[in-house]
Amino acid sequence: MEQYTVPGYTSVDEAKAVAARAYELDRKHVFHSWAAQGSFKPMVVTAAEGSYVWDGNGDKLLDFSSQLVNTNIGHQHPKVVQAIVEQAQRITTIAPHHVNDQRSEAARLISERTPGDLNQVFFTNSGAEAVEHAIRMARVHTGRNKVLSRYRSYHGATALAINVTGDPRRWANDRGTEGAVHFFGPFLYRSAFHSTNEAEEEQRALEHLEQVIELEGPATIAALILETVPGGPGIIPPPPGYLRGVRELCTKHGIVMIADEVMCGFGRTGRWFAIDEFDTVPDLLTFAKGVNSGYVPLGGVAIAPHIAATFNDRPYPGGLTYSGHPLACAAAVATINAMSDDGVVDNARIIGETVIEPALREMAQRHSSVGDLRGRGVFWAVELVENQSTKAPLAPYAGTSQAMVEMMAECKRLGMLPLMVSNRIHIAPPCTITADEAREGLEILDQVLKIADSYAT
Amino acid sequence: MEQYTVPGYTSVDEAKAVAARAYELDRKHVFHSWAAQGSFKPMVVTAAEGSYVWDGNGDKLLDFSSQLVNTNIGHQHPKVVQAIVEQAQRITTIAPHHVNDQRSEAARLISERTPGDLNQVFFTNSGAEAVEHAIRMARVHTGRNKVLSRYRSYHGATALAINVTGDPRRWANDRGTEGAVHFFGPFLYRSAFHSTNEAEEEQRALEHLEQVIELEGPATIAALILETVPGGPGIIPPPPGYLRGVRELCTKHGIVMIADEVMCGFGRTGRWFAIDEFDTVPDLLTFAKGVNSGYVPLGGVAIAPHIAATFNDRPYPGGLTYSGHPLACAAAVATINAMSDDGVVDNARIIGETVIEPALREMAQRHSSVGDLRGRGVFWAVELVENQSTKAPLAPYAGTSQAMVEMMAECKRLGMLPLMVSNRIHIAPPCTITADEAREGLEILDQVLKIADSYAT
Ligand SMILES: Cc1ncc(COP(=O)(O)O)c(C=O)c1O
Ligand SMILES: Cc1ncc(COP(=O)(O)O)c(C=O)c1O
Repeated sequence: MEQYTVPGYTSVDEAKAVAARAYELDRKHVFHSWAAQGSFKPMVVTAAEGSYVWDGNGDKLLDFSSQLVNTNIGHQHPKVVQAIVEQAQRITTIAPHHVNDQRSEAARLISERTPGDLNQVFFTNSGAEAVEHAIRMARVHTGRNKVLSRYRSYHGATALAINVTGDPRRWANDRGTEGAVHFFGPFLYRSAFHSTNEAEEEQRALEHLEQVIELEGPATIAALILETVPGGPGIIPPPPGYLRGVRELCTKHGIVMIADEVMCGFGRTGRWFAIDEFDTVPDLLTFAKGVNSGYVPLGGVAIAPHIAATFNDRPYPGGLTYSGHPLACAAAVATINAMSDDGVVDNARIIGETVIEPALREMAQRHSSVGDLRGRGVFWAVELVENQSTKAPLAPYAGTSQAMVEMMAECKRLGMLPLMVSNRIHIAPPCTITADEAREGLEILDQVLKIADSYAT
Repeated sequence: MEQYTVPGYTSVDEAKAVAARAYELDRKHVFHSWAAQGSFKPMVVTAAEGSYVWDGNGDKLLDFSSQLVNTNIGHQHPKVVQAIVEQAQRITTIAPHHVNDQRSEAARLISERTPGDLNQVFFTNSGAEAVEHAIRMARVHTGRNKVLSRYRSYHGATALAINVTGDPRRWANDRGTEGAVHFFGPFLYRSAFHSTNEAEEEQRALEHLEQVIELEGPATIAALILETVPGGPGIIPPPPGYLRGVRELCTKHGIVMIADEVMCGFGRTGRWFAIDEFDTVPDLLTFAKGVNSGYVPLGGVAIAPHIAATFNDRPYPGGLTYSGHPLACAAAVATINAMSDDGVVDNARIIGETVIEPALREMAQRHSSVGDLRGRGVFWAVELVENQSTKAPLAPYAGTSQAMVEMMAECKRLGMLPLMVSNRIHIAPPCTITADEAREGLEILDQVLKIADSYAT
């Protein structure tokens, strides 16, 4: 059977031995993100290829998570691997105050694709650093301090980024000193505005935002940051006119609009940037993950000319050792070129429209636990509830539940790796996924939803 | 002549054409760290090898900067390049909640080398992220908020890291809300304590710190962070007993001691960690740069058991997409092994003791502009003054001067790339530098100091 070979190993036993040693050292020496270290029992990944990964038992799993929604081009894409190999042999690292050809070319390719006139790029290592620097640019540009952001958002885990975040990961880090003010975004399924349809939700969410701006004091607000499509907190595409409305409010009040496309950018929604669908140009756009699929850590901020101009004569008061790292940028150049040449962004859109969305809609008819479906491209959330009328979630907002834990185990047993967040299953395969692979994963999901149904009424 | 070939190019003209295109795109699309973008005229680097880089004209420069003091193992070390090539072909990226063999092995190798019982490692992408997470660990561990740090320090440029920083880069970012409290460290040349010798400076600096702790209120202080040897702000090794004294104060008051070894760690001072010289074990140690020479972005926090235990049952409230990135960790494994196998740390110590320090001491006799010399291993600062008695600096604290700009140009003209910071020349070649290469650079420095002398009285 297929799962009994592991790419890169001469035998499954060899792979298992490597995995056992890796696991032992991990539990001794590796401190993990977001985990209670004592009880944490992580899975080993020994190999990865295209849409699949192999675990420590030699079992092959369809990667419906793209890890943390970053391997948009799939695992070990040969063109990107080759570019890393070649650049590693040329120049791995050069300080940010020198010029490097890969950094220049990456900035050009990104500028060509970002919306409107966002044609200058500040590179970072991560999404959190991109958010930190975008907010700094906005603060210096406006001379103001406060940052508006949405509830149900995630912007990273450095102190400032986690404080503008609007999900439970903020709580343990919230000292109330970062100038972060949270507002409600449009979310029809659990509307904060008692709306009954999308148009109403859009209008009420904009009225709410206008009130928040008015009552906070427009002249105190440096930036408004929001994920174009909130990702980690639930994959929540906005109503069609919402972002244009936000743009108008920001322009009217001199507030810098930051679109955080760390998760939803670079093909994930079936467009280069999620915001392309909404005919809106932010002042700053943060990216990471998909820019080079995370093959080498890279993030950044795409900057509109009027913000960049603030730092024409005045030095930009920020920097980092690896800004515009040549190896990371070479991986971005290869990733963006491969995505263009191979039609990867269109593939994400087409698979979303023709395979994933129809299958999910059909499943929703049959499974009593499915409360809501939301998404675009290869970026979908299935929100699970105990009861479709009460919408009582199958796991609490800031936690998990027996039902979710069982489903995760069953997904893995059947050969599929999703992301489970609170009461939701997030489906985020690579943008390169084939229709057959997508169907394979969706069939497993269909099986696993029976567990959810057994907890629902 | 040697400088008229450029490694990796078939001709100098080819290298120049690549450089010209890279420069043009850079000025159009790349937004640079710390720079006023309008007037910024960066140098192109087209190739790098060992202790040398090549600029956009095809000229070869001895890299006395190690870029931003990160290429401790030199440029393009064949063993590290090979490890990156091999790992790129295996697994580039895996989410932090899975186990990966390279991450496990990197954590083991780091744990073996960190002082005392610091045997768990949380990986980040950068020094700033390491500092952010170390402070979070300290805050959650103690339930306290404030962070003590030194004037004359640099800890990174995310909002929290730049606020605990004690150099001019903080100013434009300081909102006074981060809980950062700055104290004076020992710095005999410009003593804050009117000391006349090192023993006095040590004692007075510790008395000062004790007073600050007492007056701030010990029970309000989560952490004390300090660079073992402050780097960017002046390469200032502490008196022999200072860090032990700091350790005692921290222990006494339940304050988490964070040693920031992002710049001074991994061989730079001629020891694996600078703190090894001072017989002191911090609670947390931050690293980046030298851990893999920056070939792939990587940083991290080494954690003492009693801090890690806080997160045994309670989840650690922080994380990042690329924590323990396999490609970055594979580069760390190869770097640490190569440094061990090839005696790179000893080389840094021996070159420091037998070549750099004697040459600098001899130069200081002859050059009227040299106010102070400080350093260890391959980590030295030459502090330049207008007048040795008044100690008036040759450039203001937060800026540069005609003299410094001229010296930088002359260094490059003569084929050497130093770091110039304020009124100081920082000498930080790779830890792999040979005695002949070190002498070559020091002779250029000797020439260039004549310019400084012409501005001094
Ligand atoms: C929208 C968004 N912003 C920022 C981040 C933070 O990125 P990183 O984990 O690379 O710091 C994430 C990570 O998931 C994200 O989804
Ligand atoms: C001591 C120290 N800490 C932290 C940092 C920040 O590291 P990074 O630039 O990788 O964020 C630096 C960078 O020079 C440093 O020297």
